[in-house]
Amino acid sequence: MAPSPMTTSSPPIELSDRVASGRSSEVRKVFQAAMRRPGIISFANGSPFLGELPFDRLADEAHRILTELGSTALQYGTSNGIPELRRHIVDLMALEGIAADPEQVIITAGSQQAIGFVAHATVNPGDVVFAEGPSYAGAMAVFSSYEAEIVHVPSDEDGLIPADLERLIGGARAAGKRPRALYTVPNFQNPGGMNLSAERRGLLGRICQDQGLLLFEDNPYGLLGFDGGTMRAIQPDAPEITFYFGSFSKMFAPGLRLGWVLAPETMHQHLTDIAQTAALNPSVFNQLMMAAYLDNPSWRDTLATYRGLYRTKLEALVGALTEHMPAGTTWNRPTGGFYLWVTVPPGIDTHELVHEAIERGVAYVPGTAFYANGAGRSELRLSFCLPSVEEIRHGTAILGGLFTEALA
Amino acid sequence: MAPSPMTTSSPPIELSDRVASGRSSEVRKVFQAAMRRPGIISFANGSPFLGELPFDRLADEAHRILTELGSTALQYGTSNGIPELRRHIVDLMALEGIAADPEQVIITAGSQQAIGFVAHATVNPGDVVFAEGPSYAGAMAVFSSYEAEIVHVPSDEDGLIPADLERLIGGARAAGKRPRALYTVPNFQNPGGMNLSAERRGLLGRICQDQGLLLFEDNPYGLLGFDGGTMRAIQPDAPEITFYFGSFSKMFAPGLRLGWVLAPETMHQHLTDIAQTAALNPSVFNQLMMAAYLDNPSWRDTLATYRGLYRTKLEALVGALTEHMPAGTTWNRPTGGFYLWVTVPPGIDTHELVHEAIERGVAYVPGTAFYANGAGRSELRLSFCLPSVEEIRHGTAILGGLFTEALA
Repeated sequence: MAPSPMTTSSPPIELSDRVASGRSSEVRKVFQAAMRRPGIISFANGSPFLGELPFDRLADEAHRILTELGSTALQYGTSNGIPELRRHIVDLMALEGIAADPEQVIITAGSQQAIGFVAHATVNPGDVVFAEGPSYAGAMAVFSSYEAEIVHVPSDEDGLIPADLERLIGGARAAGKRPRALYTVPNFQNPGGMNLSAERRGLLGRICQDQGLLLFEDNPYGLLGFDGGTMRAIQPDAPEITFYFGSFSKMFAPGLRLGWVLAPETMHQHLTDIAQTAALNPSVFNQLMMAAYLDNPSWRDTLATYRGLYRTKLEALVGALTEHMPAGTTWNRPTGGFYLWVTVPPGIDTHELVHEAIERGVAYVPGTAFYANGAGRSELRLSFCLPSVEEIRHGTAILGGLFTEALA
Repeated sequence: MAPSPMTTSSPPIELSDRVASGRSSEVRKVFQAAMRRPGIISFANGSPFLGELPFDRLADEAHRILTELGSTALQYGTSNGIPELRRHIVDLMALEGIAADPEQVIITAGSQQAIGFVAHATVNPGDVVFAEGPSYAGAMAVFSSYEAEIVHVPSDEDGLIPADLERLIGGARAAGKRPRALYTVPNFQNPGGMNLSAERRGLLGRICQDQGLLLFEDNPYGLLGFDGGTMRAIQPDAPEITFYFGSFSKMFAPGLRLGWVLAPETMHQHLTDIAQTAALNPSVFNQLMMAAYLDNPSWRDTLATYRGLYRTKLEALVGALTEHMPAGTTWNRPTGGFYLWVTVPPGIDTHELVHEAIERGVAYVPGTAFYANGAGRSELRLSFCLPSVEEIRHGTAILGGLFTEALA
């Protein structure tokens, strides 16, 4: 009897060089393990808390859009997005000192996709992309998927250290490599939680310009400062080289899958072409939903509610860490965003222990996920946005117990 | 006075090799020119007619989903999509003889995105991808963006000619090239409108297997046969090498941006990783909408209405072509789908004339857009799905007049 085609063991399919050379995502493995365990307290996900969203109003807007504009909402759209939403985006960016025209904005299905489009347009195999150490795992995965080398730049509480960037650019050049771009999350950095100081913003823009680097400025968290303030972006000081990425996933919700990129003018048509080739266009229905949400000024009140909520959660987390973590554990004090960065004493391997933590009902992301070079075994990222204050206290107690045991 | 940074003329940014070597989309230029002219009759867009969709029911579903499941619908989701919709997809594919498990399906933000993920995973610069001549411009743009070479395989009314494929594979090998994949649209092909015969489906699967090629089977139109029948897919005969692409854009609507890929088992995790890196996940809200639409069996009646409507439109188009086109013009007779392929007599250059056609109020896509090698100046694609019967008659009369003038 001939074997069924579905059970024949066939030779594996040869992968493209770019995929064969990549490494699998550690974050994904943590998330998958965590999702298999119902009732887990997750400090892992960078998922916003959605409980304060005006779902009834959103439901009414969706109903109105599909009833009144259905044939537009469910049809193909333009690759750069709808003008109504691009105008809102320009207003949002103005809060950070960015003067843009709606025609310059390209809306994407999330800022993750926008980072991919820009990498596709600008990164060649072997190029060096500099990034904070630690840096956002998802962006590093994009650059790796285009065969770039990630080089981490040391950071302190004021963010990435400009002098170290200059030194590392020089080192890369001396080694015959091609420095291509700096990727940075200046506001409430993922995963480190720190804010890039105003002075360093200016310095980094100038260094990138002088050294011929592109600047990838990724800003999902800029409106989530606890005090409601927003810092000036780097883009206004270096518009000719800056690709600015924005997102609705953290200030509103990830479910509409909407973000954007503001690119140097000479790149606009190239990126629009890439967007069309990669995905045709972002959902018009979702864009109309997002524009309708922003049409009503109450979105600012909702955001203020979230800022207060996240501050309360962070305070609960810091209190619980103080109570439960073994001596020698340190952490920073973010002033906004989603993430707290924790350093544990020698003897605790966060990479090894994450599986036992999940067994005990708590998930986090080990520091190793945020370095391209294997560092991070004494570090971990705790997201305080999604769990409740009660879960934060309970989960931190479990983690503290696990780490204390590991030290003994 | 220092110049404003926004008006400084700065050196253009160096493009990646993959973009620098690409060519700009001709289809995009036609669409953009057409969109700038209000009231144009467009035979250009492959956009479905949406007027028969049950917008009131869709509006109610959207309202229910956001009210009852808002925190799930607007949160991040898994990179491969929600199980409810993957189960529906398996049922749809079963109509074409495909036996798949929902765990094997990866949902994407449109099948265009799925084609990109597979190209990212499997295509290296210089690889040869074979495709019908003419072929779908959007897929060719994807393969080109990964620096593949497109080689067209002659087709006749039964689709791509297997003996020619074998000959061209041999020729490519003899020239030191690396044949990597066959891309084919077997049902109501875009842009040719022809159906691949059952016999050739078996042959093509076998040739690709014997020759070590991957098979990219793209099937957006399979459920749009005028007689309601569906042909057996190629995938069941070659599951170890076939990447099957499906789409909701043509059988329902493009606005939710949802498609999928069914890949060989060994590729599932790689493609899920690529999907996560490129876009995190498709919108959960949109997936819940799509699943709700398919939960109600009346979607089959709506589809039957569309099939009848599109048949009527095609008949109107054929009648108008017979009446208005200059002698020597020929066209095929599709039995489903969206597209009619027209060949005009020597002396008419469809590539040159499209701008004048748009001036006169009618858009089409010149044949050149569907060949990677500059062919197609005597051909054009007419989409009969979107315009009304009245518009079809009027638009064809304008086109016939233009072409007749050009001959004189």
